[in-house]
Amino acid sequence: MIDYFFYPKSIAVIGATANPKKFGNAVTLNILKNKHPNIDLFLISQNRKEILGIKCYSSILDVPQAIDIAIILVPARIVQSVIDDCIKKRVKGIIIITAGFSEINDEGRKEEEIITRKCKEAGIRVMGPNCVGIQNIDLSLNASFIQTAPLGNISIISQSGSFGCATFYALEQEGLGISKFANIGNNIDVSFVDVLEFFSRDMNSKIIGIYMETIKHGRNFFNKLREIVQHKPLILLKGGRTSIGMKAASSHTGSIASNYKILKVAINQTGALLCENSTDFITALKAFSILPIPHGSHIGVLTNSGGSSVLFSDKIEEYNLSLASFTNELKDKMKKFLIPLVKLVNPLDMIGVAGEDQYYNITKLMLEEDSLDIVVACVVIPPFLEMVSDEHYRGIVKAWNDTGRKKPLIPLIFFGESFKNINQLAKKEKAPIFYTPDEAAYAVKILIERAKLIKKADKNLSI
Amino acid sequence: MIDYFFYPKSIAVIGATANPKKFGNAVTLNILKNKHPNIDLFLISQNRKEILGIKCYSSILDVPQAIDIAIILVPARIVQSVIDDCIKKRVKGIIIITAGFSEINDEGRKEEEIITRKCKEAGIRVMGPNCVGIQNIDLSLNASFIQTAPLGNISIISQSGSFGCATFYALEQEGLGISKFANIGNNIDVSFVDVLEFFSRDMNSKIIGIYMETIKHGRNFFNKLREIVQHKPLILLKGGRTSIGMKAASSHTGSIASNYKILKVAINQTGALLCENSTDFITALKAFSILPIPHGSHIGVLTNSGGSSVLFSDKIEEYNLSLASFTNELKDKMKKFLIPLVKLVNPLDMIGVAGEDQYYNITKLMLEEDSLDIVVACVVIPPFLEMVSDEHYRGIVKAWNDTGRKKPLIPLIFFGESFKNINQLAKKEKAPIFYTPDEAAYAVKILIERAKLIKKADKNLSI
Repeated sequence: MIDYFFYPKSIAVIGATANPKKFGNAVTLNILKNKHPNIDLFLISQNRKEILGIKCYSSILDVPQAIDIAIILVPARIVQSVIDDCIKKRVKGIIIITAGFSEINDEGRKEEEIITRKCKEAGIRVMGPNCVGIQNIDLSLNASFIQTAPLGNISIISQSGSFGCATFYALEQEGLGISKFANIGNNIDVSFVDVLEFFSRDMNSKIIGIYMETIKHGRNFFNKLREIVQHKPLILLKGGRTSIGMKAASSHTGSIASNYKILKVAINQTGALLCENSTDFITALKAFSILPIPHGSHIGVLTNSGGSSVLFSDKIEEYNLSLASFTNELKDKMKKFLIPLVKLVNPLDMIGVAGEDQYYNITKLMLEEDSLDIVVACVVIPPFLEMVSDEHYRGIVKAWNDTGRKKPLIPLIFFGESFKNINQLAKKEKAPIFYTPDEAAYAVKILIERAKLIKKADKNLSI
Repeated sequence: MIDYFFYPKSIAVIGATANPKKFGNAVTLNILKNKHPNIDLFLISQNRKEILGIKCYSSILDVPQAIDIAIILVPARIVQSVIDDCIKKRVKGIIIITAGFSEINDEGRKEEEIITRKCKEAGIRVMGPNCVGIQNIDLSLNASFIQTAPLGNISIISQSGSFGCATFYALEQEGLGISKFANIGNNIDVSFVDVLEFFSRDMNSKIIGIYMETIKHGRNFFNKLREIVQHKPLILLKGGRTSIGMKAASSHTGSIASNYKILKVAINQTGALLCENSTDFITALKAFSILPIPHGSHIGVLTNSGGSSVLFSDKIEEYNLSLASFTNELKDKMKKFLIPLVKLVNPLDMIGVAGEDQYYNITKLMLEEDSLDIVVACVVIPPFLEMVSDEHYRGIVKAWNDTGRKKPLIPLIFFGESFKNINQLAKKEKAPIFYTPDEAAYAVKILIERAKLIKKADKNLSI
């Protein structure tokens, strides 16, 4: 139970500083950026009496109050003595942000082992070292030196701090956000399993994203995945899949690298989603963050652009999925909104003249249609016939809203990243956009896979 | 020789109209948007005496001058009679933009066959039908109904018009541009081979991109690819790779679909690059449009973020490539710019504190280093320590400029799409940005492949 890391009543920043070129300053400022009426903050600095008008203590032992979390940012060589103080102070948890331990050399590794042992004996849990810290956006709490994530329903545990940083940029772009974030760095104590256990119980963590480079406690980890995935989507990305990648991850080469295939099988067996690259990772977070799970695998596609639906359809077949056949009833209903040139087949190519009305009406008909479970609306923004660039997307989202958002809707706006009005509309409406046929097809694939997993779980329960 | 399609001395737009809801208006406006002192434009309209102050003729036969290119936008049912007029007028080439032929039904197919035969007998070349038109950006000539592409060194032939449209959006985002564009639609006459033959001779077409759905004249096509690829990069994307995709492409199902594997082998044998998805297609255009070809395959990597270089390295090994070892001389030179925590190995992780100076100096050292052929500079924009978001990229590009841009430089700004200042700097400097480890690794892979192909060609020549 490491809940106090995310919901601390008191925090001590050890190594706080007024120097804006130091991480001790970045963490202090990030915490102070928002008001935390229920968290007492204490700054520990050996040089300063006060920072930003806040009194500083020269040691955590001088703080006249119990401390839940100590965040350590002092140089590596004095971390051990600071840890000794924290043990005396009986803090609940420690986050060691300082780098320069096992990732650097043997000396660092030995130092790390001593710290690990000391904290274990004292019964104090430790995150890090060599990490950026944690965030609980539900409390507006950024106890890290990276940017505050946007608020959302995704919780992320990352072994790399900078990967967290990059992911926040990507999520912000997509109008997505974070509930909790933890970077466990060298993970000498608090592990993936600990954090996952917390995320699995946390109401606001609807989707869990994991970036990992090395795995400890494999069996526990896989068991935890298997358990959580029944009620929350788990999205994983593994760095250090190959020997070069592993070498880059500065860890034990060879053995783990050569085992990526085995790891892949093991993770797939749990039902968690192992992504092969960072784009798929973000696509998966987006799909599960915004879209409902479908009831089946019947896909309906509409488009104004042959090329986009052709490329989408290719990918769908490569995933061993197929497009549904339209019923005669649906064809009849759709017909009256379409020009005679349009062939009533799936994908439905409404041709470049289709505008907001067609997109609204056809998307709505497909969403209302019992024989379809997922609707994919492809658009290449037409730069002609006085069309407004966001009208198609507007029609699509309105249809989704008007049908109660019961089915997953995949708007594919092919290479439409530069249309700010569409992006803004998506953020305002909390609706997704996929920008390539591959991204859209991947979203469809993983939503259908999750639908199957849930069905299987329900069946198992009912037996 | 279809040069007159791209360099016409006179154009007749048949089906010109003042109605902004018609494609005949879009094409007319697009041509008129820029001044063409060396092109005479004639508008043919049965209803109007003038459009936008330009006199209209009721038939092309009334035009008192020879016509190089007739662009047809009248309804499908009267295309044949208009074609008859064009034949009488002895135009050199015809672009049939009108849709509603073989892609619709058997009646349309028959009509198409009659038109094909008539034009063939008259010795007139035809593009289309069912296409968006052509563009020659070197002349600022947009003879299509889609947006005018940005100017650049890429020439594209696309079977799908909307794919062209989407590609322009993507290229514009990346600061890339077009020299020539042709959409051959149902390609009843002018084929991939014809257009490729022209592009291969065209000085401004430095890179050639192809989007195709069906292939005619397979042997000629592959021979043409083999011939061109020796002196220009050829980037292909195939839509309709699977039976569903092919069905979506509304063409002969089955036989072609099941042959994608064979097609792939055939294209790979020519040395042309067949991309598996639209993202790779744009990445390839970007890499070849901006970067020089490396002299070898020795890759040097620097980073401020473990995660990004780990994911990059994984992909590099998956491509059967490897990272170079740094020489002791290089290590010595680099050392003085780095903090002691930094391990002098490839990838060089300079840690989050590295700013513009480190990026400039280390990138420059690697670019100057004889034992390295390609330099990959990974960045996760640090939101801390008062760093300026574009300083790393600035340092990287300055190093590239200061070393004469002799080697390919791959800046990986991980998920940095939202940093407008970086994107603007890239456009101003005509420097590339890659946004994911996979994109960067793909660029490295294809540059190295092309280096090998050129070496092999040189060897063959010298034998």
